Amino acid sequence: MPVRMAEPAAEAYRYPLLVRHLLHAPLATAREQVIVYGDRRRHSYLEFANRIERLAGLLTRFGAEPGATVAVLDWDSHRYLECFFAVPMLGAVLQTVNVRLSPDQVAYTMSHARAEIVLLHRDFLPLYEAIRDRLPGVRHVVLLDDDEDASGPGWLDGEYEQCLAAAPDGYRFADFDENAVATTFYTTGTTGDPKGVCFSHRQLVLHTLAVMAALAAPAHGQSFRHGDVYMPMTPMFHVHAWGNPFVATVLGVKQVYPGRYVPDELISLRRREGVTYSHCVPTILQMLLARARERNESLAGWKICIGGSALPAGLAREALEAGIDVFAGYGMSETGPVMTVTRLNAAPGSMPLDAEIECRRRTGLPIPLVDLQLLDVERNVLPADDVAVGEVTVRAPWTTPCYVGNPEASDDLWRGGRLHTQDVGRIGPGGFLQVTDRIKDVIKTGGEWLSSLELETLISMHPDVAEVAVIGVTDARWGERPHAIVVPRAEARGSLTADDVRRHVAEAAAAGRIPKYAVPERVTLTDALDRTSVGKLDKRSLRRRFN
Amino acid sequence: MPVRMAEPAAEAYRYPLLVRHLLHAPLATAREQVIVYGDRRRHSYLEFANRIERLAGLLTRFGAEPGATVAVLDWDSHRYLECFFAVPMLGAVLQTVNVRLSPDQVAYTMSHARAEIVLLHRDFLPLYEAIRDRLPGVRHVVLLDDDEDASGPGWLDGEYEQCLAAAPDGYRFADFDENAVATTFYTTGTTGDPKGVCFSHRQLVLHTLAVMAALAAPAHGQSFRHGDVYMPMTPMFHVHAWGNPFVATVLGVKQVYPGRYVPDELISLRRREGVTYSHCVPTILQMLLARARERNESLAGWKICIGGSALPAGLAREALEAGIDVFAGYGMSETGPVMTVTRLNAAPGSMPLDAEIECRRRTGLPIPLVDLQLLDVERNVLPADDVAVGEVTVRAPWTTPCYVGNPEASDDLWRGGRLHTQDVGRIGPGGFLQVTDRIKDVIKTGGEWLSSLELETLISMHPDVAEVAVIGVTDARWGERPHAIVVPRAEARGSLTADDVRRHVAEAAAAGRIPKYAVPERVTLTDALDRTSVGKLDKRSLRRRFN
Repeated sequence: MPVRMAEPAAEAYRYPLLVRHLLHAPLATAREQVIVYGDRRRHSYLEFANRIERLAGLLTRFGAEPGATVAVLDWDSHRYLECFFAVPMLGAVLQTVNVRLSPDQVAYTMSHARAEIVLLHRDFLPLYEAIRDRLPGVRHVVLLDDDEDASGPGWLDGEYEQCLAAAPDGYRFADFDENAVATTFYTTGTTGDPKGVCFSHRQLVLHTLAVMAALAAPAHGQSFRHGDVYMPMTPMFHVHAWGNPFVATVLGVKQVYPGRYVPDELISLRRREGVTYSHCVPTILQMLLARARERNESLAGWKICIGGSALPAGLAREALEAGIDVFAGYGMSETGPVMTVTRLNAAPGSMPLDAEIECRRRTGLPIPLVDLQLLDVERNVLPADDVAVGEVTVRAPWTTPCYVGNPEASDDLWRGGRLHTQDVGRIGPGGFLQVTDRIKDVIKTGGEWLSSLELETLISMHPDVAEVAVIGVTDARWGERPHAIVVPRAEARGSLTADDVRRHVAEAAAAGRIPKYAVPERVTLTDALDRTSVGKLDKRSLRRRFN
Repeated sequence: MPVRMAEPAAEAYRYPLLVRHLLHAPLATAREQVIVYGDRRRHSYLEFANRIERLAGLLTRFGAEPGATVAVLDWDSHRYLECFFAVPMLGAVLQTVNVRLSPDQVAYTMSHARAEIVLLHRDFLPLYEAIRDRLPGVRHVVLLDDDEDASGPGWLDGEYEQCLAAAPDGYRFADFDENAVATTFYTTGTTGDPKGVCFSHRQLVLHTLAVMAALAAPAHGQSFRHGDVYMPMTPMFHVHAWGNPFVATVLGVKQVYPGRYVPDELISLRRREGVTYSHCVPTILQMLLARARERNESLAGWKICIGGSALPAGLAREALEAGIDVFAGYGMSETGPVMTVTRLNAAPGSMPLDAEIECRRRTGLPIPLVDLQLLDVERNVLPADDVAVGEVTVRAPWTTPCYVGNPEASDDLWRGGRLHTQDVGRIGPGGFLQVTDRIKDVIKTGGEWLSSLELETLISMHPDVAEVAVIGVTDARWGERPHAIVVPRAEARGSLTADDVRRHVAEAAAAGRIPKYAVPERVTLTDALDRTSVGKLDKRSLRRRFN
């Protein structure tokens, strides 16, 4: 007997999960709420809705049919937010172009995505002119200029605000399949061409609901709710600024778009507009803290979600001292992006500061619907004991179904029916994930994974150790074994022995802080580690030397 | 050109929106959290998950195949929560039997739903015995007994806890179509047989996410979040206790199930377990407040969402005085149920108490994805001006697609592609809906809708009016016109005139508080209003007299 299906009324609305449906709640409840672009523009949600209609009218006039790609090269702006909605709502595909790539790579991604219409900020005009002849598929280019200055090469179709003013009102958006591709974005690895991920309407809607639920629900801060004022500080081209502008729009909160990120201007804008919630990578936070200190300006009352890379303990402490409610999130382009967000399980100040900082910088807790598993080398599910280390794999309703037009990489991403993040970590009490390494930096020993970064951190805590690198070396019996290359402190040179290092690790293993198989048989004491031309630790060179 | 579709990797997981996926987050983050049943039972989420597997094993042993109906007759219990998950997760359909119906109606609904397996609380054994011969399709009956007492008629298959203990462990739930029916429930109108609504897995998941996002996000209380302790006070058989147990489970909060509602026990349980969030109809709130006063017990720190019928201002004030963060929500069986929830837009105490009470008892703001429209008689969309009155129609991803097996009523429910609630109301500033009447109590005049309840409230505010009823009377030109039947106060008998009443309404119309067409040409002064045998106002009798 199959499952039972309902027999819907002839006129029953099937409600496809389309991006346009995200607008119902805010347009019913927050029409007068404002959207701000730097010090240049300020308009209501009602005007925002009208501008979406005009933009759709304009794009349609330019021939943007369902399935066509509209590429945007812009800083974070009200215009970008309009594109987040208008382009997918038309049934077209929004390519959020990664403007930090090389001109060659930008040309590759736009050509690969089959961009037909381009919205181009004046800052990227030189870039675009250099690659224009490699994009014969582009039929229209609209200039984005903060001064509404339309001057430029003859092949431009006009300036955004002027085009919008002339565009027809009241575009009527139709329904279509919720699995239609809404957005696409290219991500770069260490090798090869950028790879395209894509997200459907259904995926964007579900990501928005789950992230909204996760960010609204914490008991002790680290939240994004009604009454907050939102300003992104991760680029809108990067997986939709982690999907947060969609959440902000559904909440109907005040939104502040800062254009290009200039720390001084971000701080001023935050004060002027009363921003309470943002998100950024650690580097931006570092710059903001430094600039605020110089300006002697308080950042108290700012909630900032940190992603992109791990939040260092020192930086978290500094942010807390500056009054920032700082907390980590985790995701990647392929995962839509949010998989986990951390939160305090007790009121700030009610636990020792070090424990609070550890909780704030923990990679996080899975948000609703996220099915997270650590798998070992043989794809066994590992326990959440905070010791077993495995690859982070995930199922969620908003992960990319493929790398566009790259079936081989797609199959590799999804082998065994779970998305492989190529990140390695462990899961601790209460379900807190801690990502420790990229899989390429991990040592595979006896069917287990060993984090070289964690072993390095542990060894570096020995009082006589100045520096350390841990690499995997081939081993006939275990596949790989860790090899620690250790630089003693000047005063311990000659006295620190390989046995001291092994004993130090063995003690940590006995205390359950690291697996027993982490104790390295091979320890080399040396005067200096191999470095690249820019001074970074050169593990490839070390691997060549010791393998 | 059609919309663009992705080409998923061969092994990419498509992630159907199934009820089982709601468990990922809590089982990763809240394994040790507890679920409490009165003073009888307390176990962890991990045990809850194990019990779901055993229940699935038990039901499978009883032949519960995908598509089969499992009917539950129980008070609010941990068992019911287990059924909320295990039955749909099997691909079977959970019928939450409305135990307040007459035995005839219960028999009708269970027969209509094709119940094959019944889970029956001992309290309903007499009811079931009376209708058992009318349910030949039932193959197994499991007794639910709080003392784990298995005694009873020979046709019982055993007692729930004993059966569960004997059931196999580790049931592996499979994936299936997210549109499979997960639950069904019967709703009664004033006439005819009960009508069945049904909800798919997709609908339950989307309702859970949207309600969680809506209830977590308010800035000034009226919230349900991590750290809360949940106890339902609307029956689990009634549209899944408004879907809140699913939300509680995804949040991973402590859940307290109170069994049969006894005000004294609810109050004790709330204190003992530290309950912070509940929901109920106004009558239950009234009883709790009265009992708490008698016991001289504080209810401070309790957030209670009120639905089912309007929250009277006096009751809201009493609840506030008792320290309850009281607020209204709105929905019906057909809508899954939640459509709107109200919330304060400023901190409690920062506005005049009367205004705060009005905001708390307002029908509410649409939750994410809810597309709410007021339609007039000719299906035109009415403005949100707090004056225009129309039928509340809705589209949301979780509304029932039909009345099961009743295509005529289904088509009527969904005429024009929107679900017709048969409720009438207006939408005010900020998007707050106010439901004022059932459509059958509304007067249709000149293509507009006029709320008889609002006109009655207005007229009753005249100092010389003791009582008033307003009915619609047939009018050649306008279709219907309001007719006010007014009982003057004893001291105003002989002095109050029809013109006084008309002038009173006209003044309110001039001030924009009621439409101009509300001023009644027909006013009858009388000594008493028609009443039914139980003393309720008899509008049907009045309509007969004056039409």
